[in-house]
Amino acid sequence: MLELRLVQGSLLKKVLEAIKDLVNDANFDCSSSGFSLQAMDSSHVALVALLLRSEGFEHYRCDRNMSMGMNLGNMSKMLKCAGNDDIITIKGDDGSDTVTFMFESPTQDKIADFEMKLMDIDSEHLGIPEAEYQAIVTMPSSEFARICKDLSSIGDTVVISVTKEGVKFSTRGDIGTANIVLRQNTTVDKPEDATVIEMNEPVSLTFALRYMNSFTKATSLSNTVKISLSSELPVVVEYKIAEMGYVRFYLAPKIEEDEDENETKPKV
Amino acid sequence: MLELRLVQGSLLKKVLEAIKDLVNDANFDCSSSGFSLQAMDSSHVALVALLLRSEGFEHYRCDRNMSMGMNLGNMSKMLKCAGNDDIITIKGDDGSDTVTFMFESPTQDKIADFEMKLMDIDSEHLGIPEAEYQAIVTMPSSEFARICKDLSSIGDTVVISVTKEGVKFSTRGDIGTANIVLRQNTTVDKPEDATVIEMNEPVSLTFALRYMNSFTKATSLSNTVKISLSSELPVVVEYKIAEMGYVRFYLAPKIEEDEDENETKPKV
Amino acid sequence: MLELRLVQGSLLKKVLEAIKDLVNDANFDCSSSGFSLQAMDSSHVALVALLLRSEGFEHYRCDRNMSMGMNLGNMSKMLKCAGNDDIITIKGDDGSDTVTFMFESPTQDKIADFEMKLMDIDSEHLGIPEAEYQAIVTMPSSEFARICKDLSSIGDTVVISVTKEGVKFSTRGDIGTANIVLRQNTTVDKPEDATVIEMNEPVSLTFALRYMNSFTKATSLSNTVKISLSSELPVVVEYKIAEMGYVRFYLAPKIEEDEDENETKPKV
Repeated sequence: MLELRLVQGSLLKKVLEAIKDLVNDANFDCSSSGFSLQAMDSSHVALVALLLRSEGFEHYRCDRNMSMGMNLGNMSKMLKCAGNDDIITIKGDDGSDTVTFMFESPTQDKIADFEMKLMDIDSEHLGIPEAEYQAIVTMPSSEFARICKDLSSIGDTVVISVTKEGVKFSTRGDIGTANIVLRQNTTVDKPEDATVIEMNEPVSLTFALRYMNSFTKATSLSNTVKISLSSELPVVVEYKIAEMGYVRFYLAPKIEEDEDENETKPKV
Repeated sequence: MLELRLVQGSLLKKVLEAIKDLVNDANFDCSSSGFSLQAMDSSHVALVALLLRSEGFEHYRCDRNMSMGMNLGNMSKMLKCAGNDDIITIKGDDGSDTVTFMFESPTQDKIADFEMKLMDIDSEHLGIPEAEYQAIVTMPSSEFARICKDLSSIGDTVVISVTKEGVKFSTRGDIGTANIVLRQNTTVDKPEDATVIEMNEPVSLTFALRYMNSFTKATSLSNTVKISLSSELPVVVEYKIAEMGYVRFYLAPKIEEDEDENETKPKV
Repeated sequence: MLELRLVQGSLLKKVLEAIKDLVNDANFDCSSSGFSLQAMDSSHVALVALLLRSEGFEHYRCDRNMSMGMNLGNMSKMLKCAGNDDIITIKGDDGSDTVTFMFESPTQDKIADFEMKLMDIDSEHLGIPEAEYQAIVTMPSSEFARICKDLSSIGDTVVISVTKEGVKFSTRGDIGTANIVLRQNTTVDKPEDATVIEMNEPVSLTFALRYMNSFTKATSLSNTVKISLSSELPVVVEYKIAEMGYVRFYLAPKIEEDEDENETKPKV
């Protein structure tokens, strides 16, 4: 039996908004340590990893490990029916083909039960090895979202280049080119406004803006985003979920040849 | 001659927004007692009844009973041109084929006259008999609108079940089922937040959500909605218009056979 | 070499929003006195004239007169990437086929360079003669925008009639007619709320609402709009840009014959 009671139910609503456009169907894995998900996006290019640790729930009961296959679009439809201040409880039974989401209003005057059919989903759990990154940029998540959106109006890919002084986001398209430079800045009034660069060596990598923009749907989950970069490793774009865990997005860089080609040959 | 001056002109704007999607053309009936309308929706399933009593107008002159056929879409277009703080005056003449809406800004610096062509509309005035209802639920209108909208994302019909303890709204669809229970609650800070149940006997009826959602376009007219239910009588969904009257929507329940069919046979 | 630094960069963003739907491609003319543009709309009916005087820039360097052909849609895409509080610098070089827009955030922590390709555009600079107008109406720009939008829901053209007492905006369409009268009013709390009429002789002219609505995209540039009217002269709809210049729109009236025809023959 499974019963997970999350007082700040809006977190689960935001998690679904963050990942539902990227992933159609996925297995949620429940164990004594937490509620998690790992899934490739529907075009098998990006990877999403979610963790909500058991300590973050007001009540967490998971008698034995369970994997529940859900259609994230349908799950999102149901969670949208929860109020932003509602307490959300996820309930499941061994062998049952449904999961129940219970929403309680803060005053307890309104109680809703939404029962959703589960799916059988084949999936392979990928081991994601710990890695050393050449550069890690921590910056305001809203700024990252703004930059990805702005560059998308000019081009299709973004080159992220990190030096000790700052991080540069560049693109080029038919109408011209764009470069946006953020300087390292740790002397801000609010810590979440800081741009912090931890760098072992300079790095410059190219990514598809389409996926970056998709990742920024997680912006409401956290004031900051952590971008970990290394040549020939997928970038990790991580949004922490306060006190509970994270949503991490992984995306492989475009290979250098492609990038050089873009840099030297003018687009027609 | 007809001249009806409504200081709170925004009420008339809201009335039109509430009914214009349900009813295309309708006769407005003016008598010494008030300005009223009764009309079936365009698919002849739901009935709308509006009353604005003469006492609610700052000035009310209606020399003899008149019936004015209007296209509600066109009337709404004109009323949208009135400011929310404008005074609205409705003017008509016996035998004229037009009606005039005059909008005066609070400062009297802007005066607008909109003249609309009238239509000949055949309509039969239905007598709506007074009836005893098995259960009457009064609840916040925004909560009712939210519930109808939420359930529409799951299914097409809503079962409304009233017991002494509360009212339950249920639906089912391809992706699962939903039940939302509101408890009777009269100990609230603001009276308009109360959920009050007056019940002679328990009742459970099924309605098309499409119409319920359409009725909730009247939500801005009143903080509360009153839902009167009896087996084999149309439900009445009533929004009071402060000090002046009401908009009432009538909708026949779906017959029990249909409901049972839905309950037992799985949808494909 | 050209380098124009505008501290209130949002002004340039608003200018582009005001004119980009009317004009596709245009030459911006830079001289020692200012940054200006004159262009016909794409259907060659309306004329736009923009002036940003050099004194309005924090830094203004223009070594010799330059004309830079830009696609306003692309320019708008780039300017949308500037924050509302950003300082915008326009940079160009003699003979270069690009222009650079630099955006600096108020804290200087974010610096963006957008480089846009220039175009060769044939254009003839029209001399706009100074003229005496029969009537000049100054009114709140938001009120003018509201009136044009409201009348568009009824008809296609607006008759603007000025007398000493006020200005009347009229239209007619299939569903009826509309007249909106604004009285001269100079005794208002805020000067920008005034409606001021300077009149040599009464005037009544007809214009296409489609263009008027397009002009009102400049509403955010100024709290007031100045409308200058004379028979057989194009109307001038002017939005001042604080301390710097203006955007002016010119539109020829519809000829009287057309108007009379509209007035006497009912539309089918």
